Amino acid sequence: MKIENPNPIQWQFSQRAEQLQSSAIREILKITMRPEIISFAGGLPSPQTFPVERMREAYDAVLSRAGKVALQYGPSDGYAPLREWIADSLSTSDCPIVPEQVLMLSGSQQGLDLLGKVLIDEGSKILVETPSYLGALQAFSVYRPEFVSVATDDDGLVPEALDAVGQGARLLYSLPNFQNPTGRSMTLARRIALVEACARLRVPLIEDDPYGALSYNGEPLPKLLNMNPSGVVYMGSFSKVLTPGIRLGYAVAPVPLARKMEQAKQATDLHTAQLTQMVVHEVVKDGFLTEHIPTIRKLYAAQCQSMLDALQEFFPAGASWTRPQGGMFIWVTLPKHINSMELLEAAVAQNVAFVPGAPFYANTPEPNTLRLSFVTVPPEQIRIGVEKLGKLIAARM
Amino acid sequence: MKIENPNPIQWQFSQRAEQLQSSAIREILKITMRPEIISFAGGLPSPQTFPVERMREAYDAVLSRAGKVALQYGPSDGYAPLREWIADSLSTSDCPIVPEQVLMLSGSQQGLDLLGKVLIDEGSKILVETPSYLGALQAFSVYRPEFVSVATDDDGLVPEALDAVGQGARLLYSLPNFQNPTGRSMTLARRIALVEACARLRVPLIEDDPYGALSYNGEPLPKLLNMNPSGVVYMGSFSKVLTPGIRLGYAVAPVPLARKMEQAKQATDLHTAQLTQMVVHEVVKDGFLTEHIPTIRKLYAAQCQSMLDALQEFFPAGASWTRPQGGMFIWVTLPKHINSMELLEAAVAQNVAFVPGAPFYANTPEPNTLRLSFVTVPPEQIRIGVEKLGKLIAARM
Repeated sequence: MKIENPNPIQWQFSQRAEQLQSSAIREILKITMRPEIISFAGGLPSPQTFPVERMREAYDAVLSRAGKVALQYGPSDGYAPLREWIADSLSTSDCPIVPEQVLMLSGSQQGLDLLGKVLIDEGSKILVETPSYLGALQAFSVYRPEFVSVATDDDGLVPEALDAVGQGARLLYSLPNFQNPTGRSMTLARRIALVEACARLRVPLIEDDPYGALSYNGEPLPKLLNMNPSGVVYMGSFSKVLTPGIRLGYAVAPVPLARKMEQAKQATDLHTAQLTQMVVHEVVKDGFLTEHIPTIRKLYAAQCQSMLDALQEFFPAGASWTRPQGGMFIWVTLPKHINSMELLEAAVAQNVAFVPGAPFYANTPEPNTLRLSFVTVPPEQIRIGVEKLGKLIAARM
Repeated sequence: MKIENPNPIQWQFSQRAEQLQSSAIREILKITMRPEIISFAGGLPSPQTFPVERMREAYDAVLSRAGKVALQYGPSDGYAPLREWIADSLSTSDCPIVPEQVLMLSGSQQGLDLLGKVLIDEGSKILVETPSYLGALQAFSVYRPEFVSVATDDDGLVPEALDAVGQGARLLYSLPNFQNPTGRSMTLARRIALVEACARLRVPLIEDDPYGALSYNGEPLPKLLNMNPSGVVYMGSFSKVLTPGIRLGYAVAPVPLARKMEQAKQATDLHTAQLTQMVVHEVVKDGFLTEHIPTIRKLYAAQCQSMLDALQEFFPAGASWTRPQGGMFIWVTLPKHINSMELLEAAVAQNVAFVPGAPFYANTPEPNTLRLSFVTVPPEQIRIGVEKLGKLIAARM
C-alpha cells in the first residue's frame, strides 16, 4: 500500500527547536549505565528509598475502590484532595496556601516548561543563579529568553547583585535549598533580602524546591513562598521524597498565574494522570512522609559524609568543594587550568563518571568545575571512585 | 516570616499565552457534570470499557517484580519493550516500523504540543481539516501559526484542495478515522490521494488516530503512516482502547524528527512515567487488546445506533447528521439561521448538553453545527435527550 518514490522531506525545524540539544547529563548517563562504572554523574535518587510495597498497596487500594474514576480523564488543575493536602502542607501560621494556587504537574520539570510558555517572549530577560539547574536552562531556552546570570557565593544567590540587573526581568529562577548542582543553601537573611529585592523590583520569583525536605538535620529554613505568596511561584516534587518514575510534581502560584498555567497545561497534555495523583494522595494522606523522609535524610547524610571524607583524603590541595547540609550533590572547583570535560574523558577510561560543570552556566561557563552525586553509590565505591579522580586531578596540577 | 507590603506583581504574560483560553469543551464539561444532566458533550470514553481488574493485576505484577526500576527515572524516548511492541503492531508486510521511530508520550495530546514546538514558527502556515479537533487547534495555536482550513466533505479531507493552499506549509494535520468532531472517515482512494499530494508538496502529514481501532465492523482502513513512513507522523493513544486516566500515548515519526521531538520532550517533562509504560506493556504484550477492543466496538456501535435511531425519530427535516462507522461522535448540521451556542443555553435549561461546533473551526466557524457524543449515555437517556433537543430545534425552524 506504500506510495512510490515519495519526495523526501527536508525537515525544517522551528527556530526554537534549534535551541534544543540532547542534555549533556543524559547523554553521559547513557554511557555510564554500564555496571562497571562508578557513576557520580546521576541525578537519580537512591532506589533504596523507594517505598515499593507502600506504593503497591496504594495502587491496589485505589484501583479496587475507585478504579473507574482513577482510570478516567480528570481535571486539568489536578485531583482536588491532593491539591488540598499540598496546600495544607505548605501553609504556615501567617501564610495560608489555598488549593486554587496549586496546579498538579507531570513532574516539576513540566512547571518550568509551562512557566517559559506563559512568561517568556523571545528576548525576555530572565535571571538565573550562577551556576543553575541544567534542566531549567533547557526548559526556558526553548522560549529564547536573554539569560542574565546573577552572582552567587557559598550562601547562594547574592541579593544585592539584583539591583544592577533585575529591572524589567520576567522572572528570577532560584533553588534556595541544596541547589542542583552546587548543594548550596541560602541563609535566612539572604532569603529575606532576596524576596524583598524581587518585590521591590516587581520581578516574579520562582522557588524550585525538589530537595528542601532532604535537610540532614531535619530543620528546613522558611520557604520563599511563605514570605511573599503573591510574588513567588513554588515548584514542588514527589520525585525525591517518594519516587521519580511516576512523574508527579506541582506548582503553587498566585491565582492569576496558576489559571494561565492551567490553560497552558490543558493545551500541552490535558491533565496529569488521575490514577497517579489518587495513589500518591492515598500514600501521603495519613502522614507517611513524616516517617519516610527521615530515613532518606539519614541515608543521604551518611553517603554525603563518605564522599566528603574521601575528598578530604584523596583530592589534592588546590581543589575545593561545597559541604552540603542536605540534598544530593557536591560541587567541586579545580584550579582554573583544569578542564573538567577533558578530565571526564580520562575518568571514564578508568570507569569513573561525573558531570562537568560548564553546562550549568547560562552565560560564561567555568570549565574547571564539576558536580558529584553521592546518593546511589555505596561508600566503599565512593572511596575508590574519589581516589581515582583525585589521582587524575593531581596529575594535572 | 512574611515580608511587609510587597509591591503587587502586574503579571505580564507572553504573547503566546494570550492565545490561551480555557477550552470551551472543558468549561462546558464542568457545568454538565451535574448528575441530572444528559450530557452528549463529553469526549470521554465509557468507563464500562476500562479493564480495571486487568490493570490492577498488572500494577501488582510490575511493582512486585520490578518495583525499583518502575519507580526510577527512565529514558526520554520511553520504555524499550513497549516501543518495540508498538513498532511491531504498526508494521505491515511492505512497511516495517522500527522502535527508533517511536516516542512515548504523556498522552497523544502531548505529541501535538511537541510537534508545535519543533515545527511551528510564528506565522508558519499549517493546514487543518474543516472542522478539526479542538485540542489540536489549541496545542498548535500557542505557537502562533497561520491556520489554513482545507475543504472537507462526507469522505473527509479533499486532497485536490491542497494544491491551491499546500505550498510551503509546515504540516498538515489530519484525523482520517472517525474524526473528532465529525465522526467522518476517509475512503481508501482519498487516503492514497492525500499521501501523494503531501509527498508531492513535501508537506509533513500528521495522522492523529485515537479512534482508528474503534471501527464498528472491525476492519480498519490502511494507515497513512504505512503509505509513506518517511513523510507521515502517526499519533497513537491508549486512551480509547484501554484507559485515558493513565495518560499514555505515542508518536511514530521519521527518525530525524523523532530525535528532535525527544529533545523537546526531555526539556518539557524529562520522560513519561516509567511505571505506566511497564504496566501497559504488561497488559498488552500477550494480545489482551485483541480480545478487549471488540467489546468496546460492540458497545459503541450499539450506542451509536441508538442515537441515530433517535435522531431519525425526533430531529426535524432540515437538520442533517453524519452516520459514523466507528468512534465516538456524531456531527449535526442545522439550518444556517440556528446558532448552536444559543441552542445549548436552552438545552442546558432542560438538562441536556452537547458541544457547539464553532470552536472546532480554525478559520470561519459554522455556528449552525454541533457535536454529539453517544458513548457514555444509556440508550433510554439518549432517546430522552435527543427528543428534547429535537423539540428545541423544531421550535427554531
